Amino acid sequence: MNRNLGSIRKQMKNNGIDAYIIPVTDPHLGEYVPDHWRIVRWLTGFTGSAANVVITESFAGLWTDSRYFIQAENQLKGSGFELMKLKIPHTPEYIDWLVANLEKGSRVAADDRIMPLGIVQMIEKAFTRKKINLDLEHDLVSDIWKDREFMPIAKAFEHPVRYAGKSRKEKIAALRERMQSLGADYHLLTSLDDIAWLLNIRGGDVKFSPLFTSFSIIGQEQILLFSNRVKIPGGLKEKLEADGVTILPYEQVNTELGKLESGKSIIITPGTTSAALFKSIPGTVDIIEEISIPTRMKAVKNDVEIENIRQVMIKDGLALTRFFHWLEHSVGKTKITEISAADKLLEFRMQQDDCIGPSFATIAGYKEHGALPHYCATPETDVELKPEGIFLLDSGGQYYGGTTDVTRTVCLGKPTEQQKTDFTLALKGTINLAMAKFPLGTKGYQIEILARKALWEQGMNYGHGTGHGVGYFLNVHEGPQTIGTGASGDLKTIIEPGMLTADEPAIYREGEYGFRTENLILCVEDKETEYGKFLKFETVTLCYIDTSLISKELMTESEIKWLNDYHELVYNILSQLLPDEIKEWLKGKTQPI
Amino acid sequence: MNRNLGSIRKQMKNNGIDAYIIPVTDPHLGEYVPDHWRIVRWLTGFTGSAANVVITESFAGLWTDSRYFIQAENQLKGSGFELMKLKIPHTPEYIDWLVANLEKGSRVAADDRIMPLGIVQMIEKAFTRKKINLDLEHDLVSDIWKDREFMPIAKAFEHPVRYAGKSRKEKIAALRERMQSLGADYHLLTSLDDIAWLLNIRGGDVKFSPLFTSFSIIGQEQILLFSNRVKIPGGLKEKLEADGVTILPYEQVNTELGKLESGKSIIITPGTTSAALFKSIPGTVDIIEEISIPTRMKAVKNDVEIENIRQVMIKDGLALTRFFHWLEHSVGKTKITEISAADKLLEFRMQQDDCIGPSFATIAGYKEHGALPHYCATPETDVELKPEGIFLLDSGGQYYGGTTDVTRTVCLGKPTEQQKTDFTLALKGTINLAMAKFPLGTKGYQIEILARKALWEQGMNYGHGTGHGVGYFLNVHEGPQTIGTGASGDLKTIIEPGMLTADEPAIYREGEYGFRTENLILCVEDKETEYGKFLKFETVTLCYIDTSLISKELMTESEIKWLNDYHELVYNILSQLLPDEIKEWLKGKTQPI
Repeated sequence: MNRNLGSIRKQMKNNGIDAYIIPVTDPHLGEYVPDHWRIVRWLTGFTGSAANVVITESFAGLWTDSRYFIQAENQLKGSGFELMKLKIPHTPEYIDWLVANLEKGSRVAADDRIMPLGIVQMIEKAFTRKKINLDLEHDLVSDIWKDREFMPIAKAFEHPVRYAGKSRKEKIAALRERMQSLGADYHLLTSLDDIAWLLNIRGGDVKFSPLFTSFSIIGQEQILLFSNRVKIPGGLKEKLEADGVTILPYEQVNTELGKLESGKSIIITPGTTSAALFKSIPGTVDIIEEISIPTRMKAVKNDVEIENIRQVMIKDGLALTRFFHWLEHSVGKTKITEISAADKLLEFRMQQDDCIGPSFATIAGYKEHGALPHYCATPETDVELKPEGIFLLDSGGQYYGGTTDVTRTVCLGKPTEQQKTDFTLALKGTINLAMAKFPLGTKGYQIEILARKALWEQGMNYGHGTGHGVGYFLNVHEGPQTIGTGASGDLKTIIEPGMLTADEPAIYREGEYGFRTENLILCVEDKETEYGKFLKFETVTLCYIDTSLISKELMTESEIKWLNDYHELVYNILSQLLPDEIKEWLKGKTQPI
Repeated sequence: MNRNLGSIRKQMKNNGIDAYIIPVTDPHLGEYVPDHWRIVRWLTGFTGSAANVVITESFAGLWTDSRYFIQAENQLKGSGFELMKLKIPHTPEYIDWLVANLEKGSRVAADDRIMPLGIVQMIEKAFTRKKINLDLEHDLVSDIWKDREFMPIAKAFEHPVRYAGKSRKEKIAALRERMQSLGADYHLLTSLDDIAWLLNIRGGDVKFSPLFTSFSIIGQEQILLFSNRVKIPGGLKEKLEADGVTILPYEQVNTELGKLESGKSIIITPGTTSAALFKSIPGTVDIIEEISIPTRMKAVKNDVEIENIRQVMIKDGLALTRFFHWLEHSVGKTKITEISAADKLLEFRMQQDDCIGPSFATIAGYKEHGALPHYCATPETDVELKPEGIFLLDSGGQYYGGTTDVTRTVCLGKPTEQQKTDFTLALKGTINLAMAKFPLGTKGYQIEILARKALWEQGMNYGHGTGHGVGYFLNVHEGPQTIGTGASGDLKTIIEPGMLTADEPAIYREGEYGFRTENLILCVEDKETEYGKFLKFETVTLCYIDTSLISKELMTESEIKWLNDYHELVYNILSQLLPDEIKEWLKGKTQPI
């Protein structure tokens, strides 16, 4: 029996609530959430990053997407929660469930501090028809969650201009110009990555992403930063104030929103603004619903950032090369498990300058674990690597000069023909997306098929997106662009020069193995013709691809050329910085096929 | 001076109107409009099918998309109207113009009988911020348009089940079932093609499309059909009534909508329901906004329709083959112009059983005229075809058993290398889209790049969509599916087995020539695997492709195989039905490359 679930149901009954909604997020509504707000994990045991929970008197369900089906099935055992499989990832399908299963006139509740305005608007629209009422001021969790973590209070720190490329003053000026062109007097920022980027500050409130918890209201004259004061050290505080930033208590954001003058206008982002914050804005203030301007601005990396990313890719490539060299020479001789391999890779990364840690929980999946796209080894699931079978390793580092995310799959023994075919078909996807050329104005969903075509032709597919945007010493998943059709990015966003995106086609054989080759690709200009401006990608990740897994006969000439050119580049850049033994070994790994 | 424009401005002044909007449509809000409603043509001279007009005291502008830029430039000369070039086709960019150019508190007017609810909702949202008022009950045209055509009164006729595949009773039963699953008591139908399909009726109110002007309200018990009674002949009237259809005067639709009982629900389609009709629905009726159910149902052709389409494609292929044979043997000997060539093709089509006329205005573009995607020769522009240069011919027929749409481009002399390269790159697009394989659930925009990739790689492109849906003895452009990213179709619609879609990549060299190879492709099942159900296309158009324009070295092996297989099929099917001379000629045209 899940006692917490029972307690929530009791409160529901006392308050006349027929259904209660809990999303897997916090008041900033991002993917990266501090422990204080991990209500879903506390209540259900599910640890994934995407979920919505609905509780009624007789039902308790958790909606998540296919990446998490197997994991959720296990973690929900005995929790009293049923796994509800999303048909389309990142969509609120629970709303349809509520409409279908509740009586006319029912009462649904939630906590508006963690409900995005955009979702609330959808719920209200869907409920109208069935005359279901939505009551948004119910926190049924705080009183019963006894050992809840405190709100994080890690110290913020400056991200210097030599890394950021632009001073906060420059960024603020550019932001204000864009606000003016949209006719906006104010801009509410709720996303932690937006604020960190704009103010050139980083923090330590969230695992893996250097974020610090705050809200901000940008005006044409003033900048209000709402944050726990203890988080901002003396020196930084003065610098921020010198640049026009007024620091106010975190909780004061509602009050300040309430003070906005009638007739003024404010930009808010419905997807990342809570219904509670929206409610604080007086009805006489004009609302401009837009994706936040910093989200769009920071997606296009500046020249300094791009140069730093290239340097970081060398460091990351060296760490990966050293790791795979070590792995190949140690497997079967030393005991290596999924967890110890991930630790070893982190050790190699931390030896690099400016690396402060991993950018997400490493996915080290041996054999059938590789078939779980978001596998994360635990002491219970951890297995030993042997000199046989397929090993998938998806990892990344946080460097002051960029965030990395790379997947390689290697064969620790002799691959089967089926494995070679599978690996090659998925690799063709990675390569074909990397070779894409397209006119300015093209959206990510238009080019995604290049990554899937070789698989689709054989009746194969993978159940996740192909490319998420990547932050800069920030979130490893950071939109608005996406190469895919999912709702995780903004489908209307075009791919622009300076955008850094993942390229990670894959194939999974349940119970057997998984293959994924993931590089980061930077959009750059190709050429201008009478038909307009054309763009292309530069693959910036530098790590060899295991050619022992390739069936050359499945590849076209241009794909083979891409691979050989890439391997030449990887060798030329990395070999200068490697000891002779590893250099020789890398020479072999990067031989043309 | 444009006196009509002056008259409208005078009425605007008298009524205190700062801006007046005129869309290029009628109360049914489709692409195909009877002359009575061609206000934009009467007022501006522009004859294209996509436009919006805005008039202020000092400005008169017509927004259209790139297909029509050159044509509009010419037709608007001396009209007082300025061409406003749309950045994105089929979008109401004039709304932004109004917001940017009008003062706060301005008053904008339009005639709500021809304004789609969806657009009105967008306008209202955009105007709120600037406090611009929208006044929708102003018809400033009827009083001053002296020689206006009457509303059409062509007779409706039955489309027999041997063509339609399903009786109207069956279709109505299926529609009612889907209404029930959406919780809808009523369904308002405003699109003429929806009503024609549902009731198995055709008419003659609109050029090229066998539509008859009417509205319909479908209830669970009753069907109301609003139409001028003289249009429905005796025999048909009785049959309709026997099937539960009540015929009421056309104008009575508003009254009947006003009578809907409180608490009932009705499905309306915001894109094709006028603001005037929407206003008639009592506020106590629940509105379900959805793409109309018949639109979705009729896009998936039934087995009888598919079999008929295959038969019609043979007829159309025979007409095209006879035409191109005639053209090749007559050009330079007889005087042939763009117009007379189109007439001759129609003659060959009309010789086929069951063909009742063209499905749209033939595009017969010689040399530089071929570079205008929507060129339509007039006596002023008509030119003579010589035994040299490129001739693009885009045409289609209306048959009782289907609607065709096919483009072929032929070289009447010896092609240049540049022409061969251009033709081949565009043809690769036609072929690659035809060869696509994709999982069930795929949307048209996901696969469109297959048609553009070869061009994009060379910095080339075309400015229109790749594939519109095609009706069945109905509109040649008929959604909801689209292979492209434009707003002309519904981006959320997946491509399903039974859908018939155009495949028409192209390349245009302004002032020189245009190339387009267009086939209709039918979606069919490919196979089912552990990764789901996969689909593919069958090319159903049957007409040879001019191989003299092909640069074989630019094609892959699989593209060459597709072309040779296609030519073998075209020859095998058509040759049995052709006289020996043309059969021999076709043998040559379909030789493997």
